[in-house]
Amino acid sequence: MATHFADRLAAAIRARGTPAVVGLDPVLENLPTPLRPRDCRLASAVAALEAFGRGVLDAVAPHVPAVKINAGFFEALYAEGLAAYYRLVAYAHGRGLLVIGDIKRGDIGSTAKLYARGHLDHPAFDDVDPACVPDAVTLAGYLGENAVRPFIERAQTHGRGVYVLVRPSDPGADEVHEFAGTPAPAATAGTPRFYQHMAALVHRWGAAPGLVGSSGLSCVGAVVAAKDAASTAALRAALPQTPFLVPGYGAQGGTAESCRPCFRPDGTGAVINASRSVLLAFEQAKYRERHGDDWFACVAAAARDFAADVAPLARPA
Amino acid sequence: MATHFADRLAAAIRARGTPAVVGLDPVLENLPTPLRPRDCRLASAVAALEAFGRGVLDAVAPHVPAVKINAGFFEALYAEGLAAYYRLVAYAHGRGLLVIGDIKRGDIGSTAKLYARGHLDHPAFDDVDPACVPDAVTLAGYLGENAVRPFIERAQTHGRGVYVLVRPSDPGADEVHEFAGTPAPAATAGTPRFYQHMAALVHRWGAAPGLVGSSGLSCVGAVVAAKDAASTAALRAALPQTPFLVPGYGAQGGTAESCRPCFRPDGTGAVINASRSVLLAFEQAKYRERHGDDWFACVAAAARDFAADVAPLARPA
Repeated sequence: MATHFADRLAAAIRARGTPAVVGLDPVLENLPTPLRPRDCRLASAVAALEAFGRGVLDAVAPHVPAVKINAGFFEALYAEGLAAYYRLVAYAHGRGLLVIGDIKRGDIGSTAKLYARGHLDHPAFDDVDPACVPDAVTLAGYLGENAVRPFIERAQTHGRGVYVLVRPSDPGADEVHEFAGTPAPAATAGTPRFYQHMAALVHRWGAAPGLVGSSGLSCVGAVVAAKDAASTAALRAALPQTPFLVPGYGAQGGTAESCRPCFRPDGTGAVINASRSVLLAFEQAKYRERHGDDWFACVAAAARDFAADVAPLARPA
Repeated sequence: MATHFADRLAAAIRARGTPAVVGLDPVLENLPTPLRPRDCRLASAVAALEAFGRGVLDAVAPHVPAVKINAGFFEALYAEGLAAYYRLVAYAHGRGLLVIGDIKRGDIGSTAKLYARGHLDHPAFDDVDPACVPDAVTLAGYLGENAVRPFIERAQTHGRGVYVLVRPSDPGADEVHEFAGTPAPAATAGTPRFYQHMAALVHRWGAAPGLVGSSGLSCVGAVVAAKDAASTAALRAALPQTPFLVPGYGAQGGTAESCRPCFRPDGTGAVINASRSVLLAFEQAKYRERHGDDWFACVAAAARDFAADVAPLARPA
């Protein structure tokens, strides 16, 4: 029996002393100058992105328990880019990191089964490295339980997890997630918002028998951006067994303090993701002053600072 | 200036005389026996899936104006499977078909930009075949306008299109799409449902200046399953400029008659997708009786029957 994902993640957080997760969202135009490709061939672009990815994983591995690798930034380079995504998942595993595959897939059940095969299941082929499968993936649950069930079944069997979108970090998503059925002016304080409806569904999906680990957390998590403290605390209370993946720290404006309501009183129940503030540390004056053009040292220092900044959140209140 | 997607699609529908779209959703275990791989190597599986895909495209090309290729069924075979998806898009173009890439991507704006590069933009690399880019893609718009805008911009520039999920075919999606804010028993007939909210957003996104072609249809379409006639007709009326992609025909229970309210009175405005009823025709008695073990002939006959069945929908009422 595979160890439960939430238990594995909790152990990794204890070992590193921080709930910090670095997001790997590399863009070709923003790579450190020495790594940028010298021609317009796809293979050169993929090699550049992958070299940067490996460097970032090396730089952050000593400081954080997990990384989140965003498939979209690799699919910008077609199937060849997605191949690099899988290789980097395996590379991160080799560095002792847990890996969240940020794939945001969501389709009806018959299609979800196939997505789950390629993105979360144990490989059925002799020549596919099992290390290329992430420990958890992000999902869009907007097509209902059938769209996430195939992933949840694989998660349960293989000690993996899913994080279903409940409250995205982009304020642009509010036009969907703040929907309250009745027209906005008529909606009272008690009218459920769409994100609360999604939260209730995710809670229900994750509470099924056999999905909750010894930590009291389910293998069905939620992506929950920390907005105002009151609504975040209400989500934490409504989803007591749901692990949160919290985007929006750093470049998107979130702070350790704004993320605090995402945690349970004992300091468990959430991980905080930072992407650009770590990945692009070599563009920031505070790191360039210390490390000059050494992009690796800048990224490592930013990861260490981020890990230390959010470390207190994982301690009991 | 590239020809508008809706105009290109309308011309193709006129040329073939039918609004039928065949969905390519191949599953390894369901391939015709002679095509099944003989070992457990990933490369063998990809080759089998691709050979079947090419055969299906050959078989249906004389009968339908467009195909929908579902990325999920290829991602089940990792990046190598996605590479086959791109090669089949190019192959379909070579057969004179328009191609809808059924990718259902949906992420915040900063990530959506990257997904749009790899899935709808003109390639920025010398060695990527522009024919591997589909003419349109399906999207999940649940993260709001920022999540679809990068795709719409590419669609406008390159004469391509998008179809945003509004009403999925799976009844399991109802637990999300029938959400009405107020608890269900209290929701009156007039309370907007979540799918109607998404419909209103898609209408607004597609009505922006420069997005509507000479056919009066936008390059921003909607995936709209034909449920009861009244609610479908209401969606058609609420989205007068939005082309519909209608799933659920055939294996999922939809009929030509149930799809009729998706069309405008002049017979434009929608395409009907059938996947399994065509792809798996070689398992159906009605085709086996005529064609025996000739899977290619079965698929071709099923495509011809499907095309003829829905052909009247594209004629003025």
